[in-house]
Amino acid sequence: MKAEIIAVGTEILLGQINNTNTTFLAQELAGLGIEVYYQSVVGDNPRRLEEVLRLADQRSDLIVLCGGLGPTDDDLTKQVTAKHVGQELVADERGYQNLLAFFEKRERPMTENNRLQALVFKDGESLQNSTGLAVGIFYQSESGKSYLLLPGPPNELEPMFFNEAIPLLQRHFQSDERLISRVLRFYGIGESELVTKLADLIKQQTNPTLASYAKPNEVTLRLTVSTLDEGQGKQKLDQMEKVILERVGDYFYGYGENNSLAQVVVDLLKRKQKTVSAAESLTAGSFQATLGSISGVSEVYSGGFVTYSETTKLQFLKLDSEMLKKYGTVSKECAEAMALQARKLAGSDFALSFTGVAGPDSLEGHKAGTVWIGLATEDGVESHLYHFARDRNYIRNSAVMTGLDLLRRKLIK
Amino acid sequence: MKAEIIAVGTEILLGQINNTNTTFLAQELAGLGIEVYYQSVVGDNPRRLEEVLRLADQRSDLIVLCGGLGPTDDDLTKQVTAKHVGQELVADERGYQNLLAFFEKRERPMTENNRLQALVFKDGESLQNSTGLAVGIFYQSESGKSYLLLPGPPNELEPMFFNEAIPLLQRHFQSDERLISRVLRFYGIGESELVTKLADLIKQQTNPTLASYAKPNEVTLRLTVSTLDEGQGKQKLDQMEKVILERVGDYFYGYGENNSLAQVVVDLLKRKQKTVSAAESLTAGSFQATLGSISGVSEVYSGGFVTYSETTKLQFLKLDSEMLKKYGTVSKECAEAMALQARKLAGSDFALSFTGVAGPDSLEGHKAGTVWIGLATEDGVESHLYHFARDRNYIRNSAVMTGLDLLRRKLIK
Repeated sequence: MKAEIIAVGTEILLGQINNTNTTFLAQELAGLGIEVYYQSVVGDNPRRLEEVLRLADQRSDLIVLCGGLGPTDDDLTKQVTAKHVGQELVADERGYQNLLAFFEKRERPMTENNRLQALVFKDGESLQNSTGLAVGIFYQSESGKSYLLLPGPPNELEPMFFNEAIPLLQRHFQSDERLISRVLRFYGIGESELVTKLADLIKQQTNPTLASYAKPNEVTLRLTVSTLDEGQGKQKLDQMEKVILERVGDYFYGYGENNSLAQVVVDLLKRKQKTVSAAESLTAGSFQATLGSISGVSEVYSGGFVTYSETTKLQFLKLDSEMLKKYGTVSKECAEAMALQARKLAGSDFALSFTGVAGPDSLEGHKAGTVWIGLATEDGVESHLYHFARDRNYIRNSAVMTGLDLLRRKLIK
Repeated sequence: MKAEIIAVGTEILLGQINNTNTTFLAQELAGLGIEVYYQSVVGDNPRRLEEVLRLADQRSDLIVLCGGLGPTDDDLTKQVTAKHVGQELVADERGYQNLLAFFEKRERPMTENNRLQALVFKDGESLQNSTGLAVGIFYQSESGKSYLLLPGPPNELEPMFFNEAIPLLQRHFQSDERLISRVLRFYGIGESELVTKLADLIKQQTNPTLASYAKPNEVTLRLTVSTLDEGQGKQKLDQMEKVILERVGDYFYGYGENNSLAQVVVDLLKRKQKTVSAAESLTAGSFQATLGSISGVSEVYSGGFVTYSETTKLQFLKLDSEMLKKYGTVSKECAEAMALQARKLAGSDFALSFTGVAGPDSLEGHKAGTVWIGLATEDGVESHLYHFARDRNYIRNSAVMTGLDLLRRKLIK
């Protein structure tokens, strides 16, 4: 089967945003064993979109469109495609209820154009949007062409693809062969280093296939096996995973697309019935905010401190001003005192501390990227010095991820 | 003139790399006043590339190809395009000397396939490569179509574009018109409501043009004018901006692509020499982390509290346990007491507080999305109740943005 991806949006055509949706869809379709032969981008223009659809009909079996499902005048993917395939637009009941609930909750009036977002093809299938309002559409024409319409915002497109589109595509296009995927997540190793260590596996790959994805501050590997027998498929994945972990297992922290280092840490804390707190300087609350992003974190985290200046380090954490004067705030001594005091004041089992230079300027003679992370436990305190690279917010994020990984390693010891 | 960008490479088709070249070229061409109507991607396959070229001939005047100029077997852009336009390939003298010098320096033998990189069209113009070996090509056919062939590696493509392609394109396609853009940023109004209020302007748009972009929790409008005279162009933008702000000025908070509500708030605090602190419950440090993302924030922010549980609200902020028992933590009273205590303990001019239900579960009988935000100032304290929608982290982010906007409005009063 030949597939093609069409991204709709003048902002992509003008280069105002990166076409990351197409990259995402290309990867995921490849993972499903669906081959993409063409990608194209067209502006918010009905005539040119119709032209591109006509062309796609000639050369592709599955046509995936993204963008242009929103409520505004220049969102016209649905209307143009409906006309192209001769489908009537009708309201999707679940999508419409979702719209009503959204505006009711916000106590804001729902403008007429918003209704557009719940319209779907009369003879198509609807894809619900768990993070937004525009409903997705799947439709197979009598001539056997398939159309999949997805929303443009990545935070809507990606969950819709995983939750709704994958099962649907598998149902429609899968032969007896099934694809089984497994995602392995790594922290602390760069993508190029990881693929160098696995170069022979990547070269030889046939079944299972192996693909790496670099994300900010982590790398994931997706193993995909095509199989007639689920048990046999899983066995093949187990074998490949074993070989991979023999080489890079030290950096492996967990499984799954919807996982994160923070999720793994919160799960470990829950399982061990331990609690955590923090005192943050350069990260300014990011570590705690990251913990806070995990549902149910209140079981293991009850609060902490942001001590961005010397004054708040003294006032909130009661640090020793002589110590700070002697060693400065970017020091082992400060990091360890912060962690110990946070643990004591919050009454937690663990406490992390972060102090250093986010940049762009140097601080106390230390270059941007210099970061001390402290970890207080019932056995005392340890601290580690890091030199992170890139810009201010990459440095802050690196510190948060490294803090999570320190705690994870302590918890699995 | 209609332009089209064709990126050649199976690695893009499979989503293994982002198609950043196309984004770069789209931006740069727009800046030169050259309008891009289509973008496409095709794999390293001669038949499909020829097909895409034939299509481009029908719909575009300038066809920019990138990728596939290298020495390996799957680099075939030059050969396929040469055949397509009926051009003979000949060695470019400067490019060939460059090749020889490269291999001499490395003391490595030059393999035969490397010569390919110095081949150009007999009747075309060559674009030298200052950071690599593959020579670029510009060619105008008798039928008036123009072809620009550029290398795939961004570190070769970008310098070649700036140094060689821009002067060449200006020579061939010069119009005296320039494009000037201005970005307006809005918070507190949805994209659909914004475009409804500006519907007539968006419908009538010719010059300047007007485009809206929804980002998480904010909307931007880009105004673009095509002009012969910079002063006149800016005047046109000023006029359009005035009409827009008369209608939706209440939601406008700043200018520019690289701006944010947090940046505007930090700038205002600096200008007024005021400081801010916070006590966060459901946001768990996100408000402070967002402030911390702005370089130079230490002038106006020195720290604050994350009080995620009732215990830390009592311990860190010394709230009244009777009050909490009576009203609960999701209450006006709790929000106001948190803000007042944060302001007092941090010794700041302003303090924000956030308490509510991030979800997915209800808390103290309040649904997910119920959030109280408090703002303490030298004049006392105020608090506001919100009902945010969507998932846990969207709710938390909505609370942070709303807190920033509350403070911004207080600062510009």
